[in-house]
Amino acid sequence: MSAARKQSGGLGGEIVPGRQAVRELVIAKRRRIHSVLVAREQDPNDRLEEVLELARDAGADVRMVSRDDVAKEARIETHQGIVARAEPVLEVRLDDLSVPTAFLVALDGVTDPRNLGAVLRTAEVAGATGAVLARHGGAMLSPAAVKAAAGAVEHLPLTLVSGIAAALENLRRADIWSVGLDHTGPTSVYDLTVATGPVVLVLGAEGAGLSRLARERCDILAAIPTHGSINSLNVSAAAAVACFELARRRAADSLDAAPG
Amino acid sequence: MSAARKQSGGLGGEIVPGRQAVRELVIAKRRRIHSVLVAREQDPNDRLEEVLELARDAGADVRMVSRDDVAKEARIETHQGIVARAEPVLEVRLDDLSVPTAFLVALDGVTDPRNLGAVLRTAEVAGATGAVLARHGGAMLSPAAVKAAAGAVEHLPLTLVSGIAAALENLRRADIWSVGLDHTGPTSVYDLTVATGPVVLVLGAEGAGLSRLARERCDILAAIPTHGSINSLNVSAAAAVACFELARRRAADSLDAAPG
Repeated sequence: MSAARKQSGGLGGEIVPGRQAVRELVIAKRRRIHSVLVAREQDPNDRLEEVLELARDAGADVRMVSRDDVAKEARIETHQGIVARAEPVLEVRLDDLSVPTAFLVALDGVTDPRNLGAVLRTAEVAGATGAVLARHGGAMLSPAAVKAAAGAVEHLPLTLVSGIAAALENLRRADIWSVGLDHTGPTSVYDLTVATGPVVLVLGAEGAGLSRLARERCDILAAIPTHGSINSLNVSAAAAVACFELARRRAADSLDAAPG
Repeated sequence: MSAARKQSGGLGGEIVPGRQAVRELVIAKRRRIHSVLVAREQDPNDRLEEVLELARDAGADVRMVSRDDVAKEARIETHQGIVARAEPVLEVRLDDLSVPTAFLVALDGVTDPRNLGAVLRTAEVAGATGAVLARHGGAMLSPAAVKAAAGAVEHLPLTLVSGIAAALENLRRADIWSVGLDHTGPTSVYDLTVATGPVVLVLGAEGAGLSRLARERCDILAAIPTHGSINSLNVSAAAAVACFELARRRAADSLDAAPG
């Protein structure tokens, strides 16, 4: 089942553009790397040389090419003169993420690849233990998403589900609380009693927000208090605020729990 | 001086693409609107009609055109079928921002227009009282920046300075503390003793971080604690975490100070 998923309609992510994304790909060593194309016009530097050395050691075909060739392979303009091609990003099962220490992020219809990548990067840096992506309706790991994720897809366990609402139901059975981010939510993200336990943060689409189904399945709807004339955050900014609030609470809690 | 600045090398921002950016432009009424182009293929909806009505009331030339014409004016693909043309974004003086309630954001070399716009949006929503942009080296208000700012440039007072380091010096004389965001900083953003007073949050460039000069001028260098395999946040995610941490502390402080 898991293998079948990888064959068709999986996570993708074969094209890895950008310095940090390629660097984390070769460091993480979690998927096979076919090739690395580097623009000849690159300024030589030690960090780049180290990355190329690791790529060669991993059996990748490392080639110096024109900037145009890098762009053609990368399919985005912001490739920073380097792009790798690798096996698709590995997928884990939802069950594997359903653990007592879970700190998950679920994306309910985030469509902009840069936002998707940015959310994954932020979640990984905040210490999230995994991310749940919906197979339909949301962006998969396009080159722009992989670039924006800046290596997070190599480290953060990712699972693909048919629908976020059903996944939340499964997570609930494993005692994982779901917190939907919603600017009309009655609870402040700063007052979450569930912040330090097993939790999944649910993020809605740009503009439309959480789907009705996902909203109904969330145990808690939480809002980020705003103080300006405009009151809506970009989904990746909202994810950053909420993920790091959870991280702050969880770090404080583990300090409290440590033997004095 | 202030008027001369607006003539050459000012903030720009004349081209306003995207639904939310145009909406805030017509609601804020802070600059003259020349025209609004709307793609004929748009689905009609009440919110759009309301925006167009306000634009007409403000004397703007509102025209239904082809999607191609909108794209040509907007200069970006993500225009959502609407683009306005207006006077440049108004500039305020640094002195006007140097007040005891200051909660400022200074951008030291953020070059990606989407990041610039995202930071301004986040700062406005967090309740910042102004933003300081450097005239050289950083991105000005290109269409992509204005779109990403989603209306923040209509509400958040903006000032242009020759250099961030000199601006920090001026702000210090007005008793405004500068906090540089730096992942090697010795202080946690969660432990800032200056969070509730007059403060300017200084954000460095993507990749390179704070410039040496700005770093030296900052009173405090603060880091966002990270918990992942990768440890660097995108500048707009870092801005979101830091701005909302300041907002949280300031809101808690004003509650404490309120008469019981």
